[in-house]
Amino acid sequence: HRTGIPEAIYGESKNIKDLAEIMVCLAEKNNVAFATRVRDIDALKKELEKYDLENFNLRINETARTFALIKKGHKIEKIGKIGILAAGTSDIPVAEEAKETAEIMGCEVIKSYDVGIAGVHRLFKPLKKMIEEDVCCIIVVAGMEGALPSLVTSLVDVPVIGVPTSVGYGVKITPILTMLHSCSPGLAIVNIDNGFGAGAFAGLIASMIYQKH
Amino acid sequence: HRTGIPEAIYGESKNIKDLAEIMVCLAEKNNVAFATRVRDIDALKKELEKYDLENFNLRINETARTFALIKKGHKIEKIGKIGILAAGTSDIPVAEEAKETAEIMGCEVIKSYDVGIAGVHRLFKPLKKMIEEDVCCIIVVAGMEGALPSLVTSLVDVPVIGVPTSVGYGVKITPILTMLHSCSPGLAIVNIDNGFGAGAFAGLIASMIYQKH
Amino acid sequence: HRTGIPEAIYGESKNIKDLAEIMVCLAEKNNVAFATRVRDIDALKKELEKYDLENFNLRINETARTFALIKKGHKIEKIGKIGILAAGTSDIPVAEEAKETAEIMGCEVIKSYDVGIAGVHRLFKPLKKMIEEDVCCIIVVAGMEGALPSLVTSLVDVPVIGVPTSVGYGVKITPILTMLHSCSPGLAIVNIDNGFGAGAFAGLIASMIYQKH
Amino acid sequence: HRTGIPEAIYGESKNIKDLAEIMVCLAEKNNVAFATRVRDIDALKKELEKYDLENFNLRINETARTFALIKKGHKIEKIGKIGILAAGTSDIPVAEEAKETAEIMGCEVIKSYDVGIAGVHRLFKPLKKMIEEDVCCIIVVAGMEGALPSLVTSLVDVPVIGVPTSVGYGVKITPILTMLHSCSPGLAIVNIDNGFGAGAFAGLIASMIYQKH
Amino acid sequence: HRTGIPEAIYGESKNIKDLAEIMVCLAEKNNVAFATRVRDIDALKKELEKYDLENFNLRINETARTFALIKKGHKIEKIGKIGILAAGTSDIPVAEEAKETAEIMGCEVIKSYDVGIAGVHRLFKPLKKMIEEDVCCIIVVAGMEGALPSLVTSLVDVPVIGVPTSVGYGVKITPILTMLHSCSPGLAIVNIDNGFGAGAFAGLIASMIYQKH
Amino acid sequence: HRTGIPEAIYGESKNIKDLAEIMVCLAEKNNVAFATRVRDIDALKKELEKYDLENFNLRINETARTFALIKKGHKIEKIGKIGILAAGTSDIPVAEEAKETAEIMGCEVIKSYDVGIAGVHRLFKPLKKMIEEDVCCIIVVAGMEGALPSLVTSLVDVPVIGVPTSVGYGVKITPILTMLHSCSPGLAIVNIDNGFGAGAFAGLIASMIYQKH
Amino acid sequence: HRTGIPEAIYGESKNIKDLAEIMVCLAEKNNVAFATRVRDIDALKKELEKYDLENFNLRINETARTFALIKKGHKIEKIGKIGILAAGTSDIPVAEEAKETAEIMGCEVIKSYDVGIAGVHRLFKPLKKMIEEDVCCIIVVAGMEGALPSLVTSLVDVPVIGVPTSVGYGVKITPILTMLHSCSPGLAIVNIDNGFGAGAFAGLIASMIYQKH
Amino acid sequence: HRTGIPEAIYGESKNIKDLAEIMVCLAEKNNVAFATRVRDIDALKKELEKYDLENFNLRINETARTFALIKKGHKIEKIGKIGILAAGTSDIPVAEEAKETAEIMGCEVIKSYDVGIAGVHRLFKPLKKMIEEDVCCIIVVAGMEGALPSLVTSLVDVPVIGVPTSVGYGVKITPILTMLHSCSPGLAIVNIDNGFGAGAFAGLIASMIYQKH
Ligand SMILES: Nc1ncnc2c1ncn2[C@@H]1O[C@H](COP(=O)(O)O)[C@@H](O)[C@H]1O
Ligand SMILES: Nc1ncnc2c1ncn2[C@@H]1O[C@H](COP(=O)(O)O)[C@@H](O)[C@H]1O
Ligand SMILES: Nc1ncnc2c1ncn2[C@@H]1O[C@H](COP(=O)(O)O)[C@@H](O)[C@H]1O
Ligand SMILES: Nc1ncnc2c1ncn2[C@@H]1O[C@H](COP(=O)(O)O)[C@@H](O)[C@H]1O
Ligand SMILES: [Mg+2]
Ligand SMILES: [Mg+2]
Ligand SMILES: [Mg+2]
Ligand SMILES: [Mg+2]
Ligand SMILES: [Mg+2]
Ligand SMILES: [Mg+2]
Ligand SMILES: [Mg+2]
Ligand SMILES: [Mg+2]
Repeated sequence: HRTGIPEAIYGESKNIKDLAEIMVCLAEKNNVAFATRVRDIDALKKELEKYDLENFNLRINETARTFALIKKGHKIEKIGKIGILAAGTSDIPVAEEAKETAEIMGCEVIKSYDVGIAGVHRLFKPLKKMIEEDVCCIIVVAGMEGALPSLVTSLVDVPVIGVPTSVGYGVKITPILTMLHSCSPGLAIVNIDNGFGAGAFAGLIASMIYQKH
Repeated sequence: HRTGIPEAIYGESKNIKDLAEIMVCLAEKNNVAFATRVRDIDALKKELEKYDLENFNLRINETARTFALIKKGHKIEKIGKIGILAAGTSDIPVAEEAKETAEIMGCEVIKSYDVGIAGVHRLFKPLKKMIEEDVCCIIVVAGMEGALPSLVTSLVDVPVIGVPTSVGYGVKITPILTMLHSCSPGLAIVNIDNGFGAGAFAGLIASMIYQKH
Repeated sequence: HRTGIPEAIYGESKNIKDLAEIMVCLAEKNNVAFATRVRDIDALKKELEKYDLENFNLRINETARTFALIKKGHKIEKIGKIGILAAGTSDIPVAEEAKETAEIMGCEVIKSYDVGIAGVHRLFKPLKKMIEEDVCCIIVVAGMEGALPSLVTSLVDVPVIGVPTSVGYGVKITPILTMLHSCSPGLAIVNIDNGFGAGAFAGLIASMIYQKH
Repeated sequence: HRTGIPEAIYGESKNIKDLAEIMVCLAEKNNVAFATRVRDIDALKKELEKYDLENFNLRINETARTFALIKKGHKIEKIGKIGILAAGTSDIPVAEEAKETAEIMGCEVIKSYDVGIAGVHRLFKPLKKMIEEDVCCIIVVAGMEGALPSLVTSLVDVPVIGVPTSVGYGVKITPILTMLHSCSPGLAIVNIDNGFGAGAFAGLIASMIYQKH
Repeated sequence: HRTGIPEAIYGESKNIKDLAEIMVCLAEKNNVAFATRVRDIDALKKELEKYDLENFNLRINETARTFALIKKGHKIEKIGKIGILAAGTSDIPVAEEAKETAEIMGCEVIKSYDVGIAGVHRLFKPLKKMIEEDVCCIIVVAGMEGALPSLVTSLVDVPVIGVPTSVGYGVKITPILTMLHSCSPGLAIVNIDNGFGAGAFAGLIASMIYQKH
Repeated sequence: HRTGIPEAIYGESKNIKDLAEIMVCLAEKNNVAFATRVRDIDALKKELEKYDLENFNLRINETARTFALIKKGHKIEKIGKIGILAAGTSDIPVAEEAKETAEIMGCEVIKSYDVGIAGVHRLFKPLKKMIEEDVCCIIVVAGMEGALPSLVTSLVDVPVIGVPTSVGYGVKITPILTMLHSCSPGLAIVNIDNGFGAGAFAGLIASMIYQKH
Repeated sequence: HRTGIPEAIYGESKNIKDLAEIMVCLAEKNNVAFATRVRDIDALKKELEKYDLENFNLRINETARTFALIKKGHKIEKIGKIGILAAGTSDIPVAEEAKETAEIMGCEVIKSYDVGIAGVHRLFKPLKKMIEEDVCCIIVVAGMEGALPSLVTSLVDVPVIGVPTSVGYGVKITPILTMLHSCSPGLAIVNIDNGFGAGAFAGLIASMIYQKH
Repeated sequence: HRTGIPEAIYGESKNIKDLAEIMVCLAEKNNVAFATRVRDIDALKKELEKYDLENFNLRINETARTFALIKKGHKIEKIGKIGILAAGTSDIPVAEEAKETAEIMGCEVIKSYDVGIAGVHRLFKPLKKMIEEDVCCIIVVAGMEGALPSLVTSLVDVPVIGVPTSVGYGVKITPILTMLHSCSPGLAIVNIDNGFGAGAFAGLIASMIYQKH
């Protein structure tokens, strides 16, 4: 059984017409087409009405700015559970991008947002739940000072994937540096705002576990 | 079954006397004591002769600058296979630090060094072997331009952990940036020269798989 | 025989009226006028209608944002073949700027786009063709991680000219650094997004070969 | 009543002879002479034997690299209690420099070291004690990722003074950035390794409280 | 008696509808709701008309872009006097944000603006007045070269809180660096433009003094 | 006819024993072995005496820190003329490394040193000579402000290869930036101090010309 | 006789109404009011019509974005000659700001634009003229690579004031670095785009000479 | 009358033998030879004993690390008065290098050291004296925060030349940035630690005044 990462279309720099065309084409080829950073979800939906898509379901996440076409009847094989934490409310779009990516790869996602250092008392309960639910890794999204992934890593024994974000004011490289210099072993990171990359990486870990069974 | 990362002692900034004392103390408590970045392996060996260590085996890797005390009879549980690649010969010490860390956590390590972009034809065979041997993740160590992890990630479907190194001349932050900006999903990184962090992260992935069986 | 670089007009910071005037003036003096980074191709075309240009042909590349006036009957002397590769689709405008520049200097250009590290299997065929066609150098355009020029350099024996681009998200200086720190000898670079500079440099190499015959 | 910061002599760039002379001269003028960053404590002690110092007590802190001469009988007025926390053992010299500075200004210092994010369970007890002892502010010293001051600030209601340190490997500016971008209000910082500045600032707060009584 | 920092709502990234809702909710819970970085004061005022707020007073500072709802009859306890200085006229919004924050915590604020290094003769009189009025600390806001906090610190014996600002042209990190490298002890800083953080920190100092009486 | 870049051994990080062994081994295989950045030329010479090298000639350049073994009777095919300029006397070692590399590839080198901007009147004569001698490209080595390559490029019609150097005091990245931002088309650069890379690139240009005859 | 720099009003961040009011007020007090970085010259002119300004002349430079009110009959004392050079056409606005500033201080200005390194043959004639006309200093404005000030300094014996500009693409700090690292003594610089600062500094030199007569 | 800058020999990177030879040669040609950054003054003196120098006087400044040979009877023409200020004692070597350079060009120098922001009350008297003595410009040397030049510029009407220094700990680029961003017009700067450049620039101003008489 081979479980890779579905080819994702990076919507940011594409016009809606091209984007729609690429999606339909991929969906027909692979059963699934998955676009991220879609700048105008509504416009894309409208554009897709020009195509004959009655054999496809739409899966849209406005916060994550993701958009998927999935062949009716196509079943995404379940590969394992992961956790996703976000420090502040502005980190949520990146966290949701990670969630959508992991789910389209077959993961079950347990999530908890707004649990950053400034309100650290809110962290412990959802974290405990994730461990009890036996997640195989945790994605931790944080901007500003970016200290949450390091704290989480020191509290749990599963691999933690840090995602620095560019939210808030100040020097954008700060949370990257904080996470790279973490003293708690068990943390690896992806680039700033790269929820897709984090979700894909987590999906691969889950997939490894699934394959080895 | 609980499989975390063994407490590691960072030798870089400690004098030999203190280092030896901490190691003996930890070894007695945990069966295993593991020190990294030991500045003078021979001096440490000599200093340890002052202690009664007949119940312990030494495990020393001069290239990695690691040093472990392991209680005789203590068995490290096997938790899974990982791969380690290094781009240039100067990246080997960091790769070996990762290897020692992963092995002490119970991993079996398949390694191949000097397979960087400049001699890319040497890469394909060992990479194929790793996949056939079913490694659950691959650590890729590279300095200078740091492009190897990205290439490897585009060729395989297991999670890749990039380790930028500070070898060679030039701007030390280069391989960090290259790896963070990789276009191939499936790559996460640790800090520059952090072989220990990469080994520990890989060990946790292997451990997750092992636990889920 | 003297073959230099045609004086190019940098359109970015010029208003259309001035730009048109300078172009007509240069075209009359030199037979050729070549503008890059034209912000509004249509506006320029319209503005030029005010001039009597029946003795001139227009050569327009919308993707490259270049615009040339060429005296009817003026023949650009052919000076040699070069190759141009682009890593991602967003690198194409810079690659096309290089192409236009090289062609206006008399080069024949063989090009192949979307052959970056993330889809590296698409690289080998077009690269082989370039070598068989005996190009005298290859321009390689890449953004994000910027690793493609280094890989190409390790595979071929012609001089490679790297062009870092500012496409995508993240730290814009990354591909400059990656290319400067390449371990494969045979690579030199121009500034970020400087397709014109790369095309001119490649044109000079081709011109040298042409002159020495 | 006027309570400022005692003039401190920066020992780092002074030779021992000059340093000794300046200290004796200041001690005679002000009853107290306080030197920081003394490079060779023993050499300074020896050099001071050449002077007639029977009316002075020495106050030496080898870890902090501070050295004070205090007139016998001179009483430093007590001005209030402060707390000092250090994340790792390598942060201790900076923490001790802060402690010496605050004490020479009349503060009582409650300290607790090695309570960083990687071993965060060790933090809560000493922090609780500081609050119960009614400290008027807390100095938090941390290197590497520098996340501890932010966490402490989110847990207490007294002003927190962050001191980034340059210990460990990696990008030295990281803990400065982490602390500046903290989301927890109630934190201000001094420059990297500036234990003296933090101690002096804390001393001024304590002194304000003392004066207003 | 417990005096912390009132929960502040960061308005920058919130839409007016959500902002209004959060404010009303907080105001009812805590008697006070305090929003900073409100992008459109008028729109917020209008939106709030939809709610029944007859038991609340509005407190609006257009320059500071702050907006507070305060329960009628609720009395903010007075906790002490602080000073605020601003170097240039463009630093005033940040200074006013600090002022509003400190006042809502119960501080009395003495302020003086446009007293920077370029017109340094205007500094001495207001500074003298602050000292005579017995402020417990001084906030100094400055952009561009950012040298004012350092000068003020060398002239007074109260703690000084520097706030670098991003006003003017040039390298935005300059005033942060200038303030961190000040040679005058008694200065600590918050992040660029963080008037809220400075006001909160000053409020905590005042609160400490108030509590110890 | 195939003319690539001879495999070069990077001596900087190798001990003399290993270096000697690799050289002898390569020399026997390829007729030529070429080492750069040799830290101790004399020690290497001495170490090589242990081998039977009577069939080899030594080619040593102390300034360039290069060392070559060339089989007696082996003839390096002549491939073309290049020019090398150095701005200051401290740039000479890098210029000489470029020269050695180009010569071992078969180039004839015309060189002129100490002709930088500060003594710009010394530049014109040697530059004129290079053009008259029909060099196919010019390597220009410069540190500090790094402005010479740009000036040379504006004066000649052959491709110019800029080599920034790390000589002198100040910000080491300056000449890289200056060269990348040159307004004169016809310039490409290699990394700081990379004389080897520049020589190899120039050699490839010469080789292209040679092959096309 | 005392000749300082006239108080300049920085127009960038002021609204037109405030700007007009400040100008009228200053003009009445000092005979001269001088505003730089005026964002909308026409709007300012219109706004000033609301005031009774029949005793004042307007002096407007649209390129420089400067605007002055000068009392009729007020004579600006002549203080000496200076030169101004600009490398590219995009540097002209900054050069003109310098010119206006110097002229309002009483300087006679000899100027020559578009004489940068890429067209260096155009430099020598105007430079010679400046020297023959006995200018007391030369302002040299340059962006991109910023190499012109260094070249000019190596050719003349009067003080040269470099002004880096932010024109063109690329790393904005480049011309600052190039100028600071110049090897030609006799060069000092002001901040990026600071034509006002350069003009004022040149005016002070001219004024010194004038005063010493 | 022509008064340029005497050719200076940069001693830092030269061995004593070469340095001595160049100095003797220059001294014989120009009557004066002037070396800066001499690493070993005594060794140079000793080496020079090998030459016949009875017609020359030595002028040595150990603090400045400058060394001059001056033909007996050669008279340096007096060209004017300048002022030099240094903020801290560690800035003195740079200030002295400026002084030696200015004096060898014929300036009379009035100097005052240790008058930085942290002890700002010491500044006013020597500054007043310089103005009364009619200096034609003032060099201000400062490290750390680098705020002194800006303050001095706001207090006087002569041109000020700022020299950032690398003394103290912290981010070395800080005083460069502070000085470039000064709000006080009348300040220009040279590179970090470039006392020679500042002295030469001041000498040129003095020389201009002298020539215009
Ligand atoms: N949100 C995202 N963040 C980072 N990379 C992405 C994202 N979405 C897609 N990609 C990658 O972008 C590439 C597709 O780019 P394109 O061909 O322009 O659609 C693939 O390599 C994807 O793995
Ligand atoms: N002006 C401000 N500058 C910096 N932080 C602020 C500001 N206003 C509010 N905050 C912080 O932002 C957080 C509230 O963010 P939010 O939950 O998005 O409203 C709290 O931690 C506040 O302490
Ligand atoms: N002086 C040099 N500068 C940069 N790269 C070099 C230099 N000398 C050799 N190399 C490259 O270094 C690699 C050989 O490294 P090594 O295997 O460590 O000897 C080859 O890719 C060479 O092309
Ligand atoms: N174009 C300019 N560039 C830099 N500084 C300027 C400029 N114009 C005016 N200034 C300075 O800005 C200050 C006036 O600012 P303001 O009070 O906001 O008008 C004075 O110190 C001037 O010296
Ligand atoms: Mg963990
Ligand atoms: Mg992969
Ligand atoms: Mg090649
Ligand atoms: Mg708190
Ligand atoms: Mg003070
Ligand atoms: Mg040219
Ligand atoms: Mg000159
Ligand atoms: Mg002044």
